[in-house]
Amino acid sequence: MPSQSPRYQFHPPALNDVQFTGGFWNYWQTINTEVSIPAIYHQLKMTGRIEGVKQIWKDGDPNPPHIFWDSDIAKWIEAAAYSLVHHPDEGLEALVDAIVDDYEKVQDSDGYLNSYFQPFEPANRWKNVRDRHELYCAGHMIEAAVAYNQATGKHKFLDVMMRYSSYIDQVFGPGEEQKHGYPGHEEIELALVKLSDHTGDERYRKLSTYFINNRGIQPHYYTEEALARGDDPDNWNWVTLENEVSKVDYRYNQSHLPVREQSVAVGHSVRAVYLYSGMADIAASENDEALLKALERLFESILHHRSYITGGLGSDPENEGFSDDYDLPNENAYAETCAAIGLIFWLQRMTNFDGERKYMDLLERTLYNGMLVGLSFDGTRFFYSSPLAVHRGETGEYSNFHGHRTDWHGCSCCPPNVARLLASLGQYFSSSNDNEIVLHSYADSEALYRLEQGNVTLTQETHYPWDGIVTIKVAPENPTPFRLRLRLPDWCGTFHLSVNDEAIQPEMINGYLTIERTWQQGDVVSLSLEMRPRRIHAHPAIRPNRNRVILAYGPLLYCLEGVDNGSDLDNFYLPEDAKITVRFDDELLGGINVLEGSGYRETISGDLPLYQEKAYPKTEMPFKAIPFAYWDNREEGDMQLWLREM
Amino acid sequence: MPSQSPRYQFHPPALNDVQFTGGFWNYWQTINTEVSIPAIYHQLKMTGRIEGVKQIWKDGDPNPPHIFWDSDIAKWIEAAAYSLVHHPDEGLEALVDAIVDDYEKVQDSDGYLNSYFQPFEPANRWKNVRDRHELYCAGHMIEAAVAYNQATGKHKFLDVMMRYSSYIDQVFGPGEEQKHGYPGHEEIELALVKLSDHTGDERYRKLSTYFINNRGIQPHYYTEEALARGDDPDNWNWVTLENEVSKVDYRYNQSHLPVREQSVAVGHSVRAVYLYSGMADIAASENDEALLKALERLFESILHHRSYITGGLGSDPENEGFSDDYDLPNENAYAETCAAIGLIFWLQRMTNFDGERKYMDLLERTLYNGMLVGLSFDGTRFFYSSPLAVHRGETGEYSNFHGHRTDWHGCSCCPPNVARLLASLGQYFSSSNDNEIVLHSYADSEALYRLEQGNVTLTQETHYPWDGIVTIKVAPENPTPFRLRLRLPDWCGTFHLSVNDEAIQPEMINGYLTIERTWQQGDVVSLSLEMRPRRIHAHPAIRPNRNRVILAYGPLLYCLEGVDNGSDLDNFYLPEDAKITVRFDDELLGGINVLEGSGYRETISGDLPLYQEKAYPKTEMPFKAIPFAYWDNREEGDMQLWLREM
Repeated sequence: MPSQSPRYQFHPPALNDVQFTGGFWNYWQTINTEVSIPAIYHQLKMTGRIEGVKQIWKDGDPNPPHIFWDSDIAKWIEAAAYSLVHHPDEGLEALVDAIVDDYEKVQDSDGYLNSYFQPFEPANRWKNVRDRHELYCAGHMIEAAVAYNQATGKHKFLDVMMRYSSYIDQVFGPGEEQKHGYPGHEEIELALVKLSDHTGDERYRKLSTYFINNRGIQPHYYTEEALARGDDPDNWNWVTLENEVSKVDYRYNQSHLPVREQSVAVGHSVRAVYLYSGMADIAASENDEALLKALERLFESILHHRSYITGGLGSDPENEGFSDDYDLPNENAYAETCAAIGLIFWLQRMTNFDGERKYMDLLERTLYNGMLVGLSFDGTRFFYSSPLAVHRGETGEYSNFHGHRTDWHGCSCCPPNVARLLASLGQYFSSSNDNEIVLHSYADSEALYRLEQGNVTLTQETHYPWDGIVTIKVAPENPTPFRLRLRLPDWCGTFHLSVNDEAIQPEMINGYLTIERTWQQGDVVSLSLEMRPRRIHAHPAIRPNRNRVILAYGPLLYCLEGVDNGSDLDNFYLPEDAKITVRFDDELLGGINVLEGSGYRETISGDLPLYQEKAYPKTEMPFKAIPFAYWDNREEGDMQLWLREM
Repeated sequence: MPSQSPRYQFHPPALNDVQFTGGFWNYWQTINTEVSIPAIYHQLKMTGRIEGVKQIWKDGDPNPPHIFWDSDIAKWIEAAAYSLVHHPDEGLEALVDAIVDDYEKVQDSDGYLNSYFQPFEPANRWKNVRDRHELYCAGHMIEAAVAYNQATGKHKFLDVMMRYSSYIDQVFGPGEEQKHGYPGHEEIELALVKLSDHTGDERYRKLSTYFINNRGIQPHYYTEEALARGDDPDNWNWVTLENEVSKVDYRYNQSHLPVREQSVAVGHSVRAVYLYSGMADIAASENDEALLKALERLFESILHHRSYITGGLGSDPENEGFSDDYDLPNENAYAETCAAIGLIFWLQRMTNFDGERKYMDLLERTLYNGMLVGLSFDGTRFFYSSPLAVHRGETGEYSNFHGHRTDWHGCSCCPPNVARLLASLGQYFSSSNDNEIVLHSYADSEALYRLEQGNVTLTQETHYPWDGIVTIKVAPENPTPFRLRLRLPDWCGTFHLSVNDEAIQPEMINGYLTIERTWQQGDVVSLSLEMRPRRIHAHPAIRPNRNRVILAYGPLLYCLEGVDNGSDLDNFYLPEDAKITVRFDDELLGGINVLEGSGYRETISGDLPLYQEKAYPKTEMPFKAIPFAYWDNREEGDMQLWLREM
């Protein structure tokens, strides 16, 4: 519904209009549909989450429900819905329907619906929206209900969530009898906009605007709310943090300032990027330039001071979030998979304002690295945190938070989040408006764009990201004049572009190669993006990365993994002039580019003195680097992204 | 009393036989006598410790006494006593006498004496020797009493402590009615040997042997003791540590194994080196080779795997002690001043077994670096922990435990420990036996050695450690044949030695240049040890020191300090071939050698991208390095020992 968000100049295609037809992302989407979505359901079932919806848990039963279980289920339903768009599956639909039936049954007569508060703490409804995730759960359920209605046409879940949303809209708002609060864990803001876009009912968008506008204003709602329930406002419910930098205050949930006054990304990073996504939707709906300016400042804060090169966010396990500028430890990176996903949600929105490349450069880097590393190659295991270095030491214990993917997490936000992003990923690769089509990244795919002057199908053939050659077949229903914009990635120096084998020098607009012409059925665009092994340095204020370099090829960052290179990879030195070659290894992990070359490692022997005047001996060491997203899919071991340079 | 410790081949001179006559250590001893000893008394007084001895504290009074206050007072008395040997001072003696009078008055009729337990927890006497420091305090009081008797001839304190020691000897021992325990904080072992040596009463040495032999045997005394008082043996009284490596178990106080079976230095590092000192004394007294072998293994563990280059011990603030081999973080080093001092106590003993240089090499390194840094140049302020790097960052907060000396510490073990070592330091520079004199290090000094064939005075003139030229005037009462051994420090490559201007090629025995002849009044030995700026590397298993180098000149390690070189000194790169010059700056801190040269630093500007392909710009940066022991005597700021190498 583009017209409802006028400030977005571009809009992603509807999910049923776009499809990966082969290659890199088709592999991951297929794994997601065939393995991950069933595996996540299995875990939801095994851990009592599915049963929890029935609200029949009794003392002594295993698996007592938890306040945010509804969000785990909802994200899985959303993933299932997106998957159903291209992969109809009656069995999967029946699983969703059963959950929806249960939700409908237990929904309160006033519309309230929460699998934890209804049976366990009915008296505490809305008493602590700062810490207790009711609005967060509602948001994910709204997204799921919209997605399931879009995918199947079934109305029951959407009706349930419209009832719940209408009730929330009565509870929260500016009226004297209403609560002036807003979610402690943001998410519902963007969900309510989706609900309005999908149903045409503008009440939900207004409520979202209310949540966003009220955030952080004085008197502070969370202070008043805490006092009203007889709590010390400094007593945070289930986070106790002592670190001075990240200690819990209202920065933790981005309510330290009204949102339009924020300039620095702070606090819990998943909350932050979910909030920023909602702010973007409201800025677009309301044509709110002050809100958009705040988002641009927050983007600069993240891009220039507060993000890992992988697109990972969150330096501090204490607050699961941002700490100080340039404080980006590698082994102890928090870099939660959900934060990378939330960043992708937000950056897609930022791109769609004015079609500026910088957002897509970071989105692509995050997608191929910080996000994709979250899932194992076989689709069964997940990272919660993705450290940038893993060093097990002699005891075999990991020194960092999570050095190995597991098939589930107690706090299981990440697995269904990966699944819903992968199942809907086609929507992130292009956008369009009435007379422009913008390709943000490249993949074997087919997509339909509904332009003012008629429908156009683009079919891409490419081995991207393994090489930079992309063939785009343009098929308008009738000859159609439109602008085609092709992103020239920030990592690419040299490119070659032709239309129907005729080289062209395109206009560059906002970092996109732009061709404007009347397109005919059968037109072929050929784009060749130079790929070569690159060495990337870090800003010298990032102390752990001083004297270090990271290898990259195309959008992928490369790491050394133990199974190929031995342990203690922090003891590897890459000469400044090392020759690095790329080789496509079709035997390895479905076929990947590996980077190879030779460096040195210091000889570690207990016989050597602890300190000595002469340099310790180094021996030559050939290395093989693989894409960061592909590590930890073979034997467990060490991993190193930032290599010492010599 | 050499004959009581037959396995020690060498013995330090009596304190009144040796004196620093000028130069480096005369400065520090003078500051100690004139400033530090009075300043520490002032703090003992201000904090209620002196008053606490009277046992008149009442509820509501300030400064409630603490279980180890007696040790603070005792170490100060010991320092005062050593100082009185060369600097008679009636006022100082009167202060000590007043404390001794108080101690005599409050001593229990059975001999027990503790300023905390007598008034506050009389029922808990000896109920928790693992955690509560009664034996530790007694040990320090014994040392003080012996020192004060030696210095002044006064008997009162010695009598008090002999009564107390006799009582302890009745309480602890193998008898059925006796407690089979031993101190949780070791110290009394070495003190009891001193008491036996000084009084000739062998009961105390036997009790020390009992403590050492019983340590760590099964059934474990601390387990039985805890159960007897109704405690969980895993409930440690006032240490709660969660780190897996350093968590509190019997390694914490070195009672995890019988001492003769120990091979790895573990636990609280001050306790460890105090224990090892006591073990050495018993090994020497009892001619116990198994005990000596254990000490040699523990020395290797520390030298090769578990010590900072400064001689600092303790990597982990959690247990104030040892962690894993090669785990030696710089900014978070614990490296307690008392541990460096305890290491010096122990290494002196190890040297005196067989006159092996390796112990003295580490002792000298510790003395000039990890120990001396503990005291400010003006004698008024102290480090508890001495990190090897200090980085304050933009907030101005120190990222490490202690980045700045203070005039006192709540746990004030270090200040009086520094004072007693400095006041007795002459005893650490040489030793002798019937027909050998061994010079371990060099200083402007005069010392008398009582050899079998007559007394010999050696007078040294030198600017050591600022240069390596030492002139030794030999003055036997009569022509006397003896061996003179001169340590060739491990850091020295080339030397020149002459006797009466005639160059000689001395025999090298255990790392000592050895001259054997009949010495005449007026003989002059001239030793020239080559000093040059050195660059030292760390074993590559010490991860934080990879790619780094430390500068040294003579026995001194050099650091970059903020006041000379700006902040964020971790952003300084020293080229491998940098020319480094030494210059004696007689204006600076009483006159010190500075090392100067030029390196590079990376330009840190917020305008630079967070990551980029090209290298970030570096600019040339001249530097001035000063001895580590001399830092933090001017403006507060950052400090860096291990410099990045490029």
